[in-house]
Amino acid sequence: MPRLDFWFDFGSSYSYPAVMTAEAEAAGRGVRLAWRPFLLGPIFAKQGLTTSPLKANPVKGAYSWRDLSRICAQLGLPFKGEPPGFPQSGVSAARVALVLEEAARPDFVRAVFRAQFGEGQTISDPSVVEAALKSLGHDADAVVAKAVSDGNKLALRRQTEDAERVGIFGAPSFITEDGELFWGHDRMADALDWAAR
Amino acid sequence: MPRLDFWFDFGSSYSYPAVMTAEAEAAGRGVRLAWRPFLLGPIFAKQGLTTSPLKANPVKGAYSWRDLSRICAQLGLPFKGEPPGFPQSGVSAARVALVLEEAARPDFVRAVFRAQFGEGQTISDPSVVEAALKSLGHDADAVVAKAVSDGNKLALRRQTEDAERVGIFGAPSFITEDGELFWGHDRMADALDWAAR
Repeated sequence: MPRLDFWFDFGSSYSYPAVMTAEAEAAGRGVRLAWRPFLLGPIFAKQGLTTSPLKANPVKGAYSWRDLSRICAQLGLPFKGEPPGFPQSGVSAARVALVLEEAARPDFVRAVFRAQFGEGQTISDPSVVEAALKSLGHDADAVVAKAVSDGNKLALRRQTEDAERVGIFGAPSFITEDGELFWGHDRMADALDWAAR
Repeated sequence: MPRLDFWFDFGSSYSYPAVMTAEAEAAGRGVRLAWRPFLLGPIFAKQGLTTSPLKANPVKGAYSWRDLSRICAQLGLPFKGEPPGFPQSGVSAARVALVLEEAARPDFVRAVFRAQFGEGQTISDPSVVEAALKSLGHDADAVVAKAVSDGNKLALRRQTEDAERVGIFGAPSFITEDGELFWGHDRMADALDWAAR
């Protein structure tokens, strides 16, 4: 079964429709997704950006929320508009996502994205991440303890360095086994088609 | 017949697949396109950008040429990669496009875009614009003389001010009669669907 690496950042707005629909789209094509949480902040910083490009350019930012609302309406996804404090820090959620077993990762990722973009919650609040874990039957305290271990913190830094090394500059991004990079929710179908062919 | 305003800049890379396919896509949906050339440079300048965002961020830029090559391959469009001197100045071509009658505009626009992105030519070279006019049976000298008149120069400035006033920050952009803005070649189908519904 061909694999597609699926790179996302928990603060990234266009990662929301991608994480909510990727699994069904991949299954329909016989593609296996490898869910790779990473942090866009350090990559933006090396590009001289101190915040999301959607904050740096308010006209483009305002457009993007309208655009995303149209996408969510088309996909039937709940959407509350720009989340409080956008771009939110996804570091706690990313550490948890990384420490979970691969099979448990997609449900957790979707729960956190739904909380942020579908319900307007703040995912840097530890109780939001813990609630997502509990709703899925995890022992939240145990998972969070593992997530904040030095080893796992390092693993997320490594993951982010890997993202940069393979040329990722935004999220969501998709990389096929033969190294083809696709950026954006609007390229997800193309990435899956490429992986499946 | 519903109208869709189609805003493009002659130096804009993603305007290329849009101008080459817009008319057929619009006809298929019973939508009339209003072709609106404008200049992105003055709008970028007000956003603090001194060049194309694809030049300002080389990693993103390199990706975008690969992305555009995939799009052109899918659409069967010739593509020579990043044109010399990108982003090229489209001011001469835009003045000519604006001074032509509306019915003659699409063919001229496509000829100039094909020269730049399909053949690697430099459209700020007057001979390239003149060759496009001649290939379509126009009296190139007469058209260019009208294009550089004070009245037409002013008309292009007004057109660019109009673009900014309606919230345009990139190209290609599409605006429906009910004021819905769509940005990017990858939103063209959505814009046409919105206009047609």
